This record gives sequence, structure tokens and C-alpha cells, in this order.
Amino acid sequence: MCVVDIVFKQIMSEIEEELLILEDDLIRAVSTKRKLIEEPLMNMISSGGKRLRPAMVLAAARFGEYDFEKVRPLALSVELIHTAAIIHDDIVDDSPIRRGVLSIQSQLGKDVAVYAGDYIFCKVFEILVSSAYSNILEQVSKVMSQICEGELKQREDLFNTDLTLKDYLYRIQKKTAILFALSAQMGAAASKAPDKIIKALYNYGINIGMAFQIIDDLLDFTGDYKKLGKPTGSDIREGIITLPAIYALKHSDDKEYLRKIFKNKNTNEDEISIAVEIIKKSGGLKYAEYMAERYVQKAKRSIAILPDTPMKKLLEDAPEVIARKYK
Amino acid sequence: MCVVDIVFKQIMSEIEEELLILEDDLIRAVSTKRKLIEEPLMNMISSGGKRLRPAMVLAAARFGEYDFEKVRPLALSVELIHTAAIIHDDIVDDSPIRRGVLSIQSQLGKDVAVYAGDYIFCKVFEILVSSAYSNILEQVSKVMSQICEGELKQREDLFNTDLTLKDYLYRIQKKTAILFALSAQMGAAASKAPDKIIKALYNYGINIGMAFQIIDDLLDFTGDYKKLGKPTGSDIREGIITLPAIYALKHSDDKEYLRKIFKNKNTNEDEISIAVEIIKKSGGLKYAEYMAERYVQKAKRSIAILPDTPMKKLLEDAPEVIARKYK
Repeated sequence: MCVVDIVFKQIMSEIEEELLILEDDLIRAVSTKRKLIEEPLMNMISSGGKRLRPAMVLAAARFGEYDFEKVRPLALSVELIHTAAIIHDDIVDDSPIRRGVLSIQSQLGKDVAVYAGDYIFCKVFEILVSSAYSNILEQVSKVMSQICEGELKQREDLFNTDLTLKDYLYRIQKKTAILFALSAQMGAAASKAPDKIIKALYNYGINIGMAFQIIDDLLDFTGDYKKLGKPTGSDIREGIITLPAIYALKHSDDKEYLRKIFKNKNTNEDEISIAVEIIKKSGGLKYAEYMAERYVQKAKRSIAILPDTPMKKLLEDAPEVIARKYK
Repeated sequence: MCVVDIVFKQIMSEIEEELLILEDDLIRAVSTKRKLIEEPLMNMISSGGKRLRPAMVLAAARFGEYDFEKVRPLALSVELIHTAAIIHDDIVDDSPIRRGVLSIQSQLGKDVAVYAGDYIFCKVFEILVSSAYSNILEQVSKVMSQICEGELKQREDLFNTDLTLKDYLYRIQKKTAILFALSAQMGAAASKAPDKIIKALYNYGINIGMAFQIIDDLLDFTGDYKKLGKPTGSDIREGIITLPAIYALKHSDDKEYLRKIFKNKNTNEDEISIAVEIIKKSGGLKYAEYMAERYVQKAKRSIAILPDTPMKKLLEDAPEVIARKYK
């Protein structure tokens, strides 16, 4: 094992250890007198999730004067924002399953899920304020508004077969990428990294977030139920038009037929299978893979100015590792 | 007209003028690129609401060095918190009507209502942070968590015929009174009123908030559809057990029959009418009126230490004016 490998392993195990501490923080953050939501929230937290956003905070913070205790509330907050957002998403998407377990809305109804999400949103602000991070609250609340805007844009664009690439990119930037960017930026800023580095990491976050969402949308076509925790074709079923579909709606020989399927709000399972086939045949998945790869490369270029540390190398490799995991 | 009356009128017209300015602020706060929610939010804002919470901010602030511009973002924020809370409430209660117009959830579905509420919650933080009110964010987020907790407690207690007075008071304090208290406290604190006065106004807010919610719950039995903007008996229909029902479940001769109706989750309209009659006959409404009156008197006593200004007199009279309006 060469020296670089040893350093790599050391950083990785450090971050893994910190993420373990964060698991406890997460559990503590969702503990409440309201037993109705406590158990489902605990289950949801324990059922996993990749903790990519906290990992981003912890990684970015290593480009300044690293102090885990300083960034700990930030790492916790970004995961809680993500958690609240997916609880509310599941209401909107009517998702029965999340991370392989029953979603809160399907366990306890939409009403409880509304408050469970609200409760966690409030927690985020409580944590940030009480840990003297009031100065970043403006940014955090703006990002949270933007996540909402992204989700609303998705809602507005349901069944819209005239959706453009630009619409799609705008939507996924708001609903996904911006929280990755915030994670990277806050981590770096909290450990007083130079402005140029903070900016570079922010851009890295945006680009890796874009790649991540494109891949996530691809999985709706290619993933298996177990890995995904939800049935494939869900997006089509819901009328959510993602990158592969946008491509097919423009380039497929069967685009008119595909348009018809999309416009029909009561599609049956056969039609969904046909739509998936048309999209696959059109090269839509390949196109989305190509776009994801472009964002991966952009993410790498974003951090070119970073000092050549093992952490930089890890960040350069990370998007490909994530991408590979899903192929 | 005596001098006191003239001063009264002057203060009232001043506050009314300020509330008019706030109407514009509210409209601006809900304006968004997401047209899907903008119009329904605008309609909801314009369809009224009594603006009691902003009025409380403006009134309380007059016990310090009054400056409208200073308290304006606070007055705006408490109304927005209230607005977001009722949008999410309507999802939970499945309310078709709010303030006499279609609720957002019934216009656009629960999904859009989730994000519409989230969006406004985020706005609150944006407004408070950008107006240099970060120092009170801890309190605001705690109050928002508590509103959630109150609503969740209500959800936990649905169809629970063993509910006690204590359970009920705990729930309405969290879901309603505490936001009134925050309004009064923030107004007074922002205009640098002495601590004793801030505390007194906070207690006033709690007590008037308790009275307000008890009266609001009474209206579900006695109010008319038009004034209320929702059908009577709604609470019983939803399984929400309020003060008159708690009384009847303990003291009515027909308490066993009432218990049966409440425990049945598929009550029909006849049974609801019977339940209302049993509760009325038991003296439950009178008891709730008595409790509301007790809180009104407590509210008055809370501000006994305030300097004898016309504003104090207005605050002393306010709860009775509100109570009378609903009789």
C-alpha cells in the first residue's frame, strides 16, 4: 500500500467515524414528545440514506482549519433539510416506499407527514441558531425556498410534453443541486477557507448535484426495486418528465405515440412499459448518461484550483464512484 | 366626544393604516415566479383574516419607543407564520373552505398546498434575517416547532374520548396561544420596552390566545356557515374533541351515547346533529364560555402593571370585543 493510499484510507475512516456520530445527532434531533411522529422519523433516519450532503460538508471543511465540532451542526442541518424535503415529497408523489421502508405518509397519512416535515424544518433553524450560525440563516432559508420552488416547478411541469432541457436543468438545480452546493460552501466557509476555495467548492456542489439528480432520474428507468426502494417507471406514472423522456420526445421515431402516453393522466402499466421502451430505444438514457458525465467533468474542473491534497483527489473521484454505483 | 375617545380613535386609525400597509407587504411576500401557487396565495391573503397577530405586534410595540418601520417585518412575519400554518392545517383537516373561499388544498391538491405552506415558512426566515432580526430567530423557530407539536397533539388525540381538560389546554396553548404571545413579546421587545412590560405583554398574549381558541372552538357549534367560512360540526366530523365536548363527555346524562358517536370514525350527519345537541344540553357551551371569560380576565390582569395609557385601555377591552363579535 503506497503512502497516498494510506492517507486516503485515513481520511475516509475519519469521515466515516464523523458520520457515525452524526447518526446519533440525527436521532436526537428527531426525538420529540409527540410519539406519533417520533417512531416513524426514527425508522426513516435509521433506514439509511447515503448521507452525501453531510459528507460534502465534512469534506469541504477540510480545505480550511478543520474542526469537526464547528461543522457538526451544519452537517446535521443539511441532512435534516434533505429529510424534511423528502417527507414532503413523498406526500406529493404519493410514494408508498422510501429507502425500502414505508414512507411516513403511507404509514400515518398525509396529515402527519405534513407536520413531521414541518417539525424537522423548524429543528433546522433551532439547531443553526443555537449553534451560533445565525449568520448563514439567510442563505439556508433562501436555499429552502429554492428547493420548494424546484418542487413546485416540477409540479407545474407535470404531463408537459413540451418541456425543454432548460426547464429540466432549472428544476433539478433548484430541487437538488443547490443543497449540495450549500453543503460544500458552508463546510468550507465555517472552517475559514479562502473565498476562492469556497466558491470553487460551491460550484463543485452544484455540478455534482446536477449529475446526481440526472443519475437519480435515470435510475427510474434502469434501477431495480430493491436497490431503489421504489418501483421503476414511477416518474412516468406520476407525469414527471425527466431528461431521457425529454430527449425521446424530441428525437424518437415514436415521439407522437410517447406524447400521447404522457398526456394521458390515467396511463396503465402496459403503456408505461411501452413508454420506457420507446425512451430506451431513442437513446434517451445514453443522452442522460452523457449529460451526467458532463456535469461530473465540470465538477472536477470546478475544483482545479484547490490545493493538491488527498481530499481533492477524493472529491475528484467521488462523482465517478457515485455514478458507477448506479450502473 | 371626550378627549379619551379622540385619542382612542386616533390610535385605532393609526393601527388600521399600518395594517393596510401590511396588506401590501403580505402580497409582496407571497409573490413568486411559481404561478401555480402565486394566485391562490394572493387570493387567500386578500380574502381577509382578522390580522389579529400583526395588530398585537403593533399594539405591544407602542409600550416602548414606537417605530413602525422597526416592527413592520415582525408584524408581517407573524401573519405569514399563521398563513403557512393554516395552509398546512387545511391539508390535515381536509377543509374545503377557508375564509369563505376555496382552501388551497381543495383548489390545487394537497401536494401544492404542502409546498405553498413550506414556501411561506421559508419566507418568514428570509424576512427576519434580512431585516436584522436574526436574534429572535431562535424564539421564532421554537414557536413554529411548538405550533407543529400542538397540531400533532391534536392529531394524536383524535377520537380520544378520555381527553382531559389539561390535554386540551396544552394543545391550544401550543397550536394557538403561543403565537399571540410571541407577537406581543416581539413587538414590545423590538421597541425596547422594559423587561417587566415585555413579560406582561407575553402573558397577555398567551391568555388572549387561549380565550381566542376556546371561542373559535365554540363557533364550531354555534357559528353560521357564512361568518365562519366552514360548516358547523366540522370538529366532531373530524374527531377533534374540544372543550364543550370534553365537558359533555364527563357531565352529560347521555355521555355513553356521546362517547359511542365520537368513537365511530364514520359518523353520519344525523349522529353529528345528535352529538351537538347532547353537548349543548350538557352545558358544555356555557362551560367553554366561562373558561374563555376566565382567560379574558387573566389577560386583563396580566397587563395590570402597564402604564395607564389609552393603548392599555384598548388592550383591556380587546378580548371582550373579540368575544362579543362571536356571540
